[in-house]
Amino acid sequence: MLRPIGFITSCYREKFGTPRQGALVPRSPARLRISPEFIPEQSLEGLEEFSHLWLFFEFHQNTNKEFRAKIHPPRLQGKTIGVFATRSPHRPNPIGLTLTRLVGVQGDTLHLEGVDLVNGTPVLDIKPYIPACDRPTRPRIGWVDRHSVSRLEVVFTPAALADLRRLVPAGQRRRVRSLIADSLAHDPRNPRDRAQLRPDRGFAFFVLHYDVHFRIRAGCAVISSLVPADEAARRRSPLAVGLL
Amino acid sequence: MLRPIGFITSCYREKFGTPRQGALVPRSPARLRISPEFIPEQSLEGLEEFSHLWLFFEFHQNTNKEFRAKIHPPRLQGKTIGVFATRSPHRPNPIGLTLTRLVGVQGDTLHLEGVDLVNGTPVLDIKPYIPACDRPTRPRIGWVDRHSVSRLEVVFTPAALADLRRLVPAGQRRRVRSLIADSLAHDPRNPRDRAQLRPDRGFAFFVLHYDVHFRIRAGCAVISSLVPADEAARRRSPLAVGLL
Repeated sequence: MLRPIGFITSCYREKFGTPRQGALVPRSPARLRISPEFIPEQSLEGLEEFSHLWLFFEFHQNTNKEFRAKIHPPRLQGKTIGVFATRSPHRPNPIGLTLTRLVGVQGDTLHLEGVDLVNGTPVLDIKPYIPACDRPTRPRIGWVDRHSVSRLEVVFTPAALADLRRLVPAGQRRRVRSLIADSLAHDPRNPRDRAQLRPDRGFAFFVLHYDVHFRIRAGCAVISSLVPADEAARRRSPLAVGLL
Repeated sequence: MLRPIGFITSCYREKFGTPRQGALVPRSPARLRISPEFIPEQSLEGLEEFSHLWLFFEFHQNTNKEFRAKIHPPRLQGKTIGVFATRSPHRPNPIGLTLTRLVGVQGDTLHLEGVDLVNGTPVLDIKPYIPACDRPTRPRIGWVDRHSVSRLEVVFTPAALADLRRLVPAGQRRRVRSLIADSLAHDPRNPRDRAQLRPDRGFAFFVLHYDVHFRIRAGCAVISSLVPADEAARRRSPLAVGLL
């Protein structure tokens, strides 16, 4: 039986728009609070000296419960490959691994950056990153190397910039803007979903306390507006308050 | 519920003498056979192009089932530290992570090197090593950096060398010898176990098909003999046959 040691508080609330790797959005903020039963005042001792951690987590939003031996990674644009040659969330055991930067430890809470996890993700373990165990010499990386992911240009319309000024406190604007830009630069669309690829299709994704509306055309994500998340949405992710 | 995707065939049969990290014994051979229900002919497709893999496995030999917030890592020689600042096997969720070199894929079987797992370890997942996700820039590694592990000198007595010549086929002798030397150089003793630290204490550890007898004195492991594992032991790890 697996027991979560805590749950992630993240600026991302939905799978759509959450970066596929933490390294893609290195400044994305998150928190992890360790449950009292795991005695954080003792079990976290010494952790603050490490700059990077592995988080083991549960892919708790997987809807497909059947095993699939082959996967369509977004990078392969429709081609398939064996699941064990991918980092896909659809795996026989729904356990994810992500490397994250530790900004600091405050009591029972870790302050993290570069997190590709949805708000509320159950965390199963923390292990310190140790180069002697974790860094191979001269790795070969197969198909990942041959299929680069193209980045989108991200543009804010004047209306979106006005929303940003109106909604976001002055001291956080620059950070929120680059968080949105970095999150969208990696094209959140599923390349196998034709409806998503239509150029007139409007999208919204939720980050921090905002719904970000955008369209994607010719390699460019155009952000048309930021809308404060409604009360119901805020209640669903109350912990995201104060993340920046 | 976690389901093993396969089980490790390793040259190590017991926790004692199994390296604490795969990187310590980079040539230690192992195999992993994927169970038919995970359709290896499909699920392994593309994996052969990667040089390094993460194995997720179960710490199935843990006897202590209670959560302990603080740990005595061998490196700290009796001092304690928070479990989440260590790679100790005694964790709230008994899931291990190890980086291993992929030598090749043959049907349903992976040939591996640099494996710190005991024969029969249940494997839960394979993920390819991808530097963009897995390699941080300028990591800080806290207490691990300040407490180096001293290496033992490893010496074969003439009697042990005679055993090696008698028991091990000529083509494998050099490899078996360095496998034994690398495995013992990292001092398999528990620094908190006084009985183990007595200089007259004799030890044996099992590797491949042999029991290796040795003593440790003044920073030196002296190997006195190699004994073929008895029939019962061979039956307990029949798969280790043909690993080299």
